[in-house]
Amino acid sequence: MSNKVSFIGTGNVCWHLSQILEESGNTICEIYGRNTIKAKQIISGLFDCKVKNDLDFFDSEANIFVLCVSDDAMQEVLDQLILPVNSILVHTSGSVGLDILEKWLVFSENESVSIGVFYPLMTLTKGVEFDAQNLPMCIEANTELAESILVKMAQKFSKTVFIVDSEERKVLHLAAVLANNFVNHLWVLTQKLMDAHDLDMALINPLLLETAQKAIKSQNLAMVQTGPAKRGDSKIIKKHLQMLENEPDIQKVYRVLSESIFNEHHEQ
Amino acid sequence: MSNKVSFIGTGNVCWHLSQILEESGNTICEIYGRNTIKAKQIISGLFDCKVKNDLDFFDSEANIFVLCVSDDAMQEVLDQLILPVNSILVHTSGSVGLDILEKWLVFSENESVSIGVFYPLMTLTKGVEFDAQNLPMCIEANTELAESILVKMAQKFSKTVFIVDSEERKVLHLAAVLANNFVNHLWVLTQKLMDAHDLDMALINPLLLETAQKAIKSQNLAMVQTGPAKRGDSKIIKKHLQMLENEPDIQKVYRVLSESIFNEHHEQ
Repeated sequence: MSNKVSFIGTGNVCWHLSQILEESGNTICEIYGRNTIKAKQIISGLFDCKVKNDLDFFDSEANIFVLCVSDDAMQEVLDQLILPVNSILVHTSGSVGLDILEKWLVFSENESVSIGVFYPLMTLTKGVEFDAQNLPMCIEANTELAESILVKMAQKFSKTVFIVDSEERKVLHLAAVLANNFVNHLWVLTQKLMDAHDLDMALINPLLLETAQKAIKSQNLAMVQTGPAKRGDSKIIKKHLQMLENEPDIQKVYRVLSESIFNEHHEQ
Repeated sequence: MSNKVSFIGTGNVCWHLSQILEESGNTICEIYGRNTIKAKQIISGLFDCKVKNDLDFFDSEANIFVLCVSDDAMQEVLDQLILPVNSILVHTSGSVGLDILEKWLVFSENESVSIGVFYPLMTLTKGVEFDAQNLPMCIEANTELAESILVKMAQKFSKTVFIVDSEERKVLHLAAVLANNFVNHLWVLTQKLMDAHDLDMALINPLLLETAQKAIKSQNLAMVQTGPAKRGDSKIIKKHLQMLENEPDIQKVYRVLSESIFNEHHEQ
């Protein structure tokens, strides 16, 4: 089954999902954005999609509406949103529950609309291509029919589609902060250290990639842990803390993570 | 030029380097290890290599000796080590200077021996194959001739060979702790969180790999940083800290890394 999809929002998620959904056989009808220039940029990469200037979609041909504005802007958009009968409204946020759409359903005059979540668990950047097969999709819906339509739409492009409720999705979002945001930041600190000593990142880039590949292959990540904190090698840890004396921020991160590794691997 | 190489030590580094050096055209003559069983396991994967039972290599045919014991065991081994004239002795440690070998050179009767370092900047595990082309090699030596022999030996298998002095190598070792040990630990914490909520790691594995791939492609890692701490989104940060109330260790890591990200991306 092919769907007709409209988007509300013009950010990274809209950029990627609109292309991915079109390429996997759906029709993208409209894109609404407060910023018309951004909306025009996105439709320029799509087959036959229009820019929409208001949030009254009552006469839209689309059967699925994808809300991908920032968490903070979501309520304001919902307050003005009007959808056609029997359509499906989803948001794409990791940290917002389905309840925000449930509330909308109660107070709007759109009783026939189904609601759900279509959350891609990935770091997406506009313009940076990403293989949709490897895009994990977390689906939630308030009716079985909507759930089945959303799952089928996701399975057309992704190998990894899971039904995830709002509580689980919040945990996933937190896990993604640890696994992506914090990890990238550690590499920012690595780069700072390398730059300060005129060392070429080419020396360490293979290690970044192997760290990820090894982790994915491993069933138990604690088993592949190595390093001074794992061994409880206080001599090296002290040396490293000394070397970081002029970088108090990195030193603090070093101390807390070494402590956490030590606690994880030694009987307390 | 092809070298004859003997190893002292039977750990992960010996397992990998002996195979890589043999496959890139060198002859592996002997492996010394206190643990004979481990030494036998390693030679079973090599063409014609013998187990050596003592540290007197005076009559050895090898011209290069690779010391790959743990930092703590290095001095004890050096105290007994005797090498043939005009050979090269290297260690493979990121955190030990060349000075430990300089001292050996002064106090032993091996004045004709050259010394150096042959440090692979990688997380290596016995039995886990690794593409040697992507193994960054850091070389140091006390003579130009030895340096040139070691560089050529490394370039036969690796695309990334750098001359790195002892001070720089210590920085690299610290950088590797941030980039590998700490990152792997963040993924250990991620796995703990996922397991505690019965969530499948398959959902988040693509994110780990993309995090690394994006970082490597980026010239400026701070530019690809995303997430609540980067945005200064205190609402989400508070929510996450609340969710981690029963995991004080992860909560502490979350707090310190979020603070560090915030400091990095906001004027202080």
